[in-house]
Amino acid sequence: MDEFSFIESIKQHTYKQSSLIKGIGDDAAVFSSLSQDIVSAVDTFVEGVHFSKETMSAFHVGYRALAANISDLAAMGATPAFYLVSIVIPKGWEQEELLQIFNGMSHLARGYNMDLIGGDTVSGKELCISVTVMGFTMKGKARYRSTAEVGDVVFVTGTLGDSGAGLHILTHSDNYKEASYYMNRHRMPSPRIPFAIGLNHLARVTLNDISDGIASEANEIADASRVTLLLDEAAIPTSSSYSQFPLKLQEKWKLFGGEDFELLGTVPAKDWDEVKQIGELTNTNVTKIGEVSETSPCGKVFLKQQHKSILLEKKGYTHLK
Amino acid sequence: MDEFSFIESIKQHTYKQSSLIKGIGDDAAVFSSLSQDIVSAVDTFVEGVHFSKETMSAFHVGYRALAANISDLAAMGATPAFYLVSIVIPKGWEQEELLQIFNGMSHLARGYNMDLIGGDTVSGKELCISVTVMGFTMKGKARYRSTAEVGDVVFVTGTLGDSGAGLHILTHSDNYKEASYYMNRHRMPSPRIPFAIGLNHLARVTLNDISDGIASEANEIADASRVTLLLDEAAIPTSSSYSQFPLKLQEKWKLFGGEDFELLGTVPAKDWDEVKQIGELTNTNVTKIGEVSETSPCGKVFLKQQHKSILLEKKGYTHLK
Repeated sequence: MDEFSFIESIKQHTYKQSSLIKGIGDDAAVFSSLSQDIVSAVDTFVEGVHFSKETMSAFHVGYRALAANISDLAAMGATPAFYLVSIVIPKGWEQEELLQIFNGMSHLARGYNMDLIGGDTVSGKELCISVTVMGFTMKGKARYRSTAEVGDVVFVTGTLGDSGAGLHILTHSDNYKEASYYMNRHRMPSPRIPFAIGLNHLARVTLNDISDGIASEANEIADASRVTLLLDEAAIPTSSSYSQFPLKLQEKWKLFGGEDFELLGTVPAKDWDEVKQIGELTNTNVTKIGEVSETSPCGKVFLKQQHKSILLEKKGYTHLK
Repeated sequence: MDEFSFIESIKQHTYKQSSLIKGIGDDAAVFSSLSQDIVSAVDTFVEGVHFSKETMSAFHVGYRALAANISDLAAMGATPAFYLVSIVIPKGWEQEELLQIFNGMSHLARGYNMDLIGGDTVSGKELCISVTVMGFTMKGKARYRSTAEVGDVVFVTGTLGDSGAGLHILTHSDNYKEASYYMNRHRMPSPRIPFAIGLNHLARVTLNDISDGIASEANEIADASRVTLLLDEAAIPTSSSYSQFPLKLQEKWKLFGGEDFELLGTVPAKDWDEVKQIGELTNTNVTKIGEVSETSPCGKVFLKQQHKSILLEKKGYTHLK
């Protein structure tokens, strides 16, 4: 199959987004935006660095690459609309596997009515997938990391550490409880789009998606908003069978593991009840895990543990007492 | 230098596009579109496939990667606005070279007031640059390949074959006339944005940019518009010292060489004088090279040579008589 036939085989025959004017088939794609703002992000995934054939099928590779990008849109409060895929193809990947990568993406995309509107296919030494996503927010309603204020409730969606546990199960054969649940959380994460969009009418919401671990994302919010975040470790939600893993790993995956693609956010305390309701309406568990305690020129994150408080940094922590 | 410091060092301190709401620094970039349509494309460049250190400095690699993408915007009649860059970095590339890649891009971007609004930096085995560009057109004014009609004038901007000649000079050491001119045409192509935007007020213009060679692009127009294109080889413009190269190579670069990033287009004959004036106003040579001769369900391109006509296909030709 040549490049032309390959593009024909992954091309959508119909498009779902009414704002799309021209999809694949010219020098570029064209769409209109009505009166919304446009949100765009790009992420690249390299075989051997971000995924391997040992733990993921080609379908999962595509699914997860797009999911990670959609999660960025969720973290902006944006409705997904379009994606473009640039793929570097090395020898050794079969045509069928490449199609499966695109199937994984389109499977996920369908759930959000997203359209594949462009891309590039080139040869190279290692498989490398660059996904550009575009979405829309109501005018002025994009959600940033920089808007947290003292008194805000800090919350997180879903459960943390599951993706790390899933990868562990995939690489350490043993008899685990709910193994397929954890593996799915690693290979087919669910970006929190419905919940993020549900927050639309709230005046101020700070959002960040958990791609590098809550420690990293909480610090990004603290830093960008110039505030201190106080988190309560006991409140951080984990799955019911999560305690089957060694304590050290539980902590590592939960705080630093990342790739859960849950949302970490803050809202004014008066809006917290409403956020919980939106969680219920969108079938999204949402848990209060702390508060914004004070303004701080160089934002810090503290984690309250049983008998001590620790300074939680992006990739580790310092015991304080 | 870690990833964070690297991103800091390539990040723009100020942005030029008034429609930009949020650049680098959150989960995604955000911009508004007023009442324009948005145009977007992505292209990927792999070391050893699309460029090599032997013929290009890091600065040129960046410059050319962005230029190729901006050329897609020109072919859509769009005004460039934003770009996102995803880069896979292997061992062996120095920090300084990587910065030079971004310098090459920002040097070109400045000329169009384009802003770098996002990207990703990951490690891998080979250098790989994915550039996503976004631009704006007036509502409904994007230019497609599919709008050519019988009677149209077929025109091309600039001169063809120069990029192929430049690469030849860079890889075959000898005493050439205007060597630096040709090398620049290969390493620092000029997308035809001012000319393409100058055509804005015309009701119908068909445009395609010459990235794969005029044979390929002419066939794309013929195919998408379902028409036959008659081109006159003697009319295809080349540089004054182009005759210094062997005849076979002249023909190869001019028809199939590509990467000149000139524009190939068609307009109604009544608008041809105006197109020439827009060429003069934007300092762009524009040459009539043929006409659209008839509708044809499977579009074909014929090239008139001195004593014969040939069927010009994407990658070669068939002698007819």
